[in-house]
Amino acid sequence: MTKNRLIYLPLGGAGEIGMNAYVYGYGPEGQERLIVVDLGVTFGDMDGSPGIDLIMADMDWLAENADRVEAIFITHAHEDHVGALGLLWPRLKAPIYARAFTAAIATLKMEEQGQPLDKIKVVKPRPETVEAGPFRVQFVPVSHSIPESAALVIDTPAGRIVHTGDFKLDGTPIVGEPFDPAEWHRIAHEGDGVKVLVCDSTNVFSTQPGRSEATLAEPIAKLIEGLDGMVVATTFASNVARLKTLSEAGRAAGRSVCLLGRAMKRMLTAAVETGVLTDFPPILTPEEALEIPRENLMLIVTGSQGERRAASAQLARGKYLGLEMREGDTFLFSSKIIPGNERGVIRVMNAFSEMGVDVVDDHGGLYHVSGHANRPDLEAVHDLLAPKILIPMHGEHRHLREHCKIGISKGMAAELAVNGAVVDLTGDEPRIVEYVEAGRTYLDGSVLIGAMDGVVRDRIRMALNGIVFATMILDEGDQPLGDAWVEIMGLPERTKDGKLLAEVLEAELTELLDRSGTKVLGNDDKLEEAVRRTVRQVAVEEIGKKPEVNVVVSRLTAE
Amino acid sequence: MTKNRLIYLPLGGAGEIGMNAYVYGYGPEGQERLIVVDLGVTFGDMDGSPGIDLIMADMDWLAENADRVEAIFITHAHEDHVGALGLLWPRLKAPIYARAFTAAIATLKMEEQGQPLDKIKVVKPRPETVEAGPFRVQFVPVSHSIPESAALVIDTPAGRIVHTGDFKLDGTPIVGEPFDPAEWHRIAHEGDGVKVLVCDSTNVFSTQPGRSEATLAEPIAKLIEGLDGMVVATTFASNVARLKTLSEAGRAAGRSVCLLGRAMKRMLTAAVETGVLTDFPPILTPEEALEIPRENLMLIVTGSQGERRAASAQLARGKYLGLEMREGDTFLFSSKIIPGNERGVIRVMNAFSEMGVDVVDDHGGLYHVSGHANRPDLEAVHDLLAPKILIPMHGEHRHLREHCKIGISKGMAAELAVNGAVVDLTGDEPRIVEYVEAGRTYLDGSVLIGAMDGVVRDRIRMALNGIVFATMILDEGDQPLGDAWVEIMGLPERTKDGKLLAEVLEAELTELLDRSGTKVLGNDDKLEEAVRRTVRQVAVEEIGKKPEVNVVVSRLTAE
Repeated sequence: MTKNRLIYLPLGGAGEIGMNAYVYGYGPEGQERLIVVDLGVTFGDMDGSPGIDLIMADMDWLAENADRVEAIFITHAHEDHVGALGLLWPRLKAPIYARAFTAAIATLKMEEQGQPLDKIKVVKPRPETVEAGPFRVQFVPVSHSIPESAALVIDTPAGRIVHTGDFKLDGTPIVGEPFDPAEWHRIAHEGDGVKVLVCDSTNVFSTQPGRSEATLAEPIAKLIEGLDGMVVATTFASNVARLKTLSEAGRAAGRSVCLLGRAMKRMLTAAVETGVLTDFPPILTPEEALEIPRENLMLIVTGSQGERRAASAQLARGKYLGLEMREGDTFLFSSKIIPGNERGVIRVMNAFSEMGVDVVDDHGGLYHVSGHANRPDLEAVHDLLAPKILIPMHGEHRHLREHCKIGISKGMAAELAVNGAVVDLTGDEPRIVEYVEAGRTYLDGSVLIGAMDGVVRDRIRMALNGIVFATMILDEGDQPLGDAWVEIMGLPERTKDGKLLAEVLEAELTELLDRSGTKVLGNDDKLEEAVRRTVRQVAVEEIGKKPEVNVVVSRLTAE
Repeated sequence: MTKNRLIYLPLGGAGEIGMNAYVYGYGPEGQERLIVVDLGVTFGDMDGSPGIDLIMADMDWLAENADRVEAIFITHAHEDHVGALGLLWPRLKAPIYARAFTAAIATLKMEEQGQPLDKIKVVKPRPETVEAGPFRVQFVPVSHSIPESAALVIDTPAGRIVHTGDFKLDGTPIVGEPFDPAEWHRIAHEGDGVKVLVCDSTNVFSTQPGRSEATLAEPIAKLIEGLDGMVVATTFASNVARLKTLSEAGRAAGRSVCLLGRAMKRMLTAAVETGVLTDFPPILTPEEALEIPRENLMLIVTGSQGERRAASAQLARGKYLGLEMREGDTFLFSSKIIPGNERGVIRVMNAFSEMGVDVVDDHGGLYHVSGHANRPDLEAVHDLLAPKILIPMHGEHRHLREHCKIGISKGMAAELAVNGAVVDLTGDEPRIVEYVEAGRTYLDGSVLIGAMDGVVRDRIRMALNGIVFATMILDEGDQPLGDAWVEIMGLPERTKDGKLLAEVLEAELTELLDRSGTKVLGNDDKLEEAVRRTVRQVAVEEIGKKPEVNVVVSRLTAE
């Protein structure tokens, strides 16, 4: 009989912050029963994925093995953990387990894609246990920047795994459960203790201990108390605790509070409906807000990352739902900039500056705290759980590598496993035994495409180089019928000498057709290649660029 | 007789950090004699200007008034102050004044564009004075992050202007002249003192006093001393002082030093040739470096901003000039990330991490200091020069606004003048009297185009939406000859139902042609519009996107 083995396979999240998707398996090699933890997205950008709506992990391997998937577990309701659920579930079709608030958001994700809602099962924190094939899984409340985040205790015949999800150590998280060291201590000391810790690595480079959400209440209240004019604050829509802190600070300063932005209202509704939030201050509709003197008003809005369609960017461009910012108002970023989003945030800041609005950033952490464990907190968890094996996850390569180094220096066996690495966790030392294909899948409009399909490559090339369309018609005898026709897009109209680029190209192509024999004219591939080469040569001379070239040869034939 | 007036007109640099181009004028309204200070560039990015090589200030207004331009002054040799000289000079044709090192780089800029080199005049620091129409201009050495930076003392019949250029207060700058408060005191107390201070605003949000270049020597030496393997450091190519600090630290740790990157060698050559640098440690060629054991080698390379073609990115991809990084090597960023460049830098960091290379960043300033004056330093200069009027420059809108606020709070008259604002400085209070067109000019390949020409807009649209080319041939009687022909680029090959997108579109367009009457078929505009509408409708249904559409209608006529 084949020996059973325990495997770990990250498909997303191990090589980037975002797009989380992890697989655990137990059973005979190649026949392991599988569970999936999180199905998240990451977001595209103009640099690498123009026009792409969402990016998620490649599911090909998992879909091929869908019959082996026992269950999907969602640790919390952030987009990078649950955002791909509705899109990818049809390829897996396994039951979904989550805590109540997470399940509420997961339900929206399934609904948006027309998937069955009854596949989602609400699970209470441990001791409640989900049996999924050889796995027994419990949800452990952890503090993060969204309600009801959970770590997973995954018991297997080969030992106990703790999968932290995203977490921080917060004794006073405002909303949700505080960090409970006694519970973690129990987890570490039940049975044989923890074999494997699969651990968040986001803040491994932050050397100071993390600060509690509760530390923000006083500075934010003080700030708002001292302000005239309208106050507008932004934070991550899902940070329900922060919404509460901001609202209470506004109320304490005699301001009525109005929330703008669909994502924020959705999160708040889910929090109220699932009982996570019981005492949120009353909030105004935008219509009611218009009736309030601006010095008595506080808006809390989406768009902390400068997203073009979010409320903050709308306000930066002018009126939004009748509300607008003016000289003397203040805009607070109760958030940090996620690396890569600087340009968008700075654009919004300058637009507000032009309106005479004072912009306040997080002031080095005075008005924002992170939701992730910093290095000393990570080490505290290593010490609390005392695992034999450490597998860093949720990080770019540099985060995983640094986290591995820490683990090894503390005497744990650690393995740097990137997306696609199959890690055998059966023995005392983790071993990478195989790599499976682990690329990225793009949602482009309503279609899922592979990152390597060439669609995005072509978009980037057109954006960098512009494009020339050359059309020509040949008759039955392969002779050109009229001149070549050229259209350009994304290219200068005129050459550096002031001639019309399209005309120069047409003249050169017409000449090419005239001098080409039937060997070229009669062969589409040869003709297209000749046209392409001519266009590029001429373009380099005339405008110093090598455009993309699209050639259409129409042949008139007896039909 | 019309009264003379003194004006200031920023064309670039007042609304962004980069692309500096400032104009001063004196004379009767509309006939002021003009001088230009700096002609810099900024760099494009995929978000806003894909495919664009360089961005510079719109010269239309200045070119129309070229006969009034007496001279061009270049404060220092950074790209954002001198980078556009060769490209824009042909439209101005005025003599160029700069200090020796700056003039050496300016000469390269003119040479690259085939412009006359004898237009550049080397000027010594004050008391040497350039007479330019009604202006008397002196160069005042200031410390910055490149040799021989200068502020300008501009004397006019209406009073003295100090244009700071980029500067910091550094008493020990390693290379170049230390900050000389006595000289600034003299400038403030000669004649009627300083009427207008036009002042760098880059670091106005940095609340701590700036630190000297000299503070880096010890931490960098200590760091390198403790390292095994090869050490590679990057910094801004033009920071000759830093190159010296890094090289000396390498030498002290028993390492031979090799410089990689064209820009770096160019700067070093200019510094040696102009006598700015006299005691730089010997450097190896890449061929020589290959012969040295890696633990005795230090490379200093270009690419601190993650630029794809620079040496750092090349090393991150593999071998560069035979040299390559390995596990156990260290890569030091003796630099900060300019906002917007995060993605590129992080890409390089992770590539090194994958090679097992330890990446060291600036450690909160331990291994890098800024070249710009922080807020307390700016205030020190305000106090030293005691100008009546403060005009903040070299900043985004938010920087200029903050700097204005500081000036006003200290009793100066201050004006927030953005690109295109003509400021009358004749009286005691600055007044914006007019706005001139002040857009951006792009270098695209070898052609200069306007930012609003639509070229870049089309590139962005193609990148976001993809493009459909539809071709059809009509005969002399406006009847379709064969079917419509569709090619797609930057779009998914298959629809969400798995059909070939191009085929679906061709079928719909053929049907459109079949059912259209001659009113549509006989009219190019109407036919193209109908094709465009059909393509978009079908695309939205089939792939959830609205592509760009390019329609070519070929009509066969008797020729």
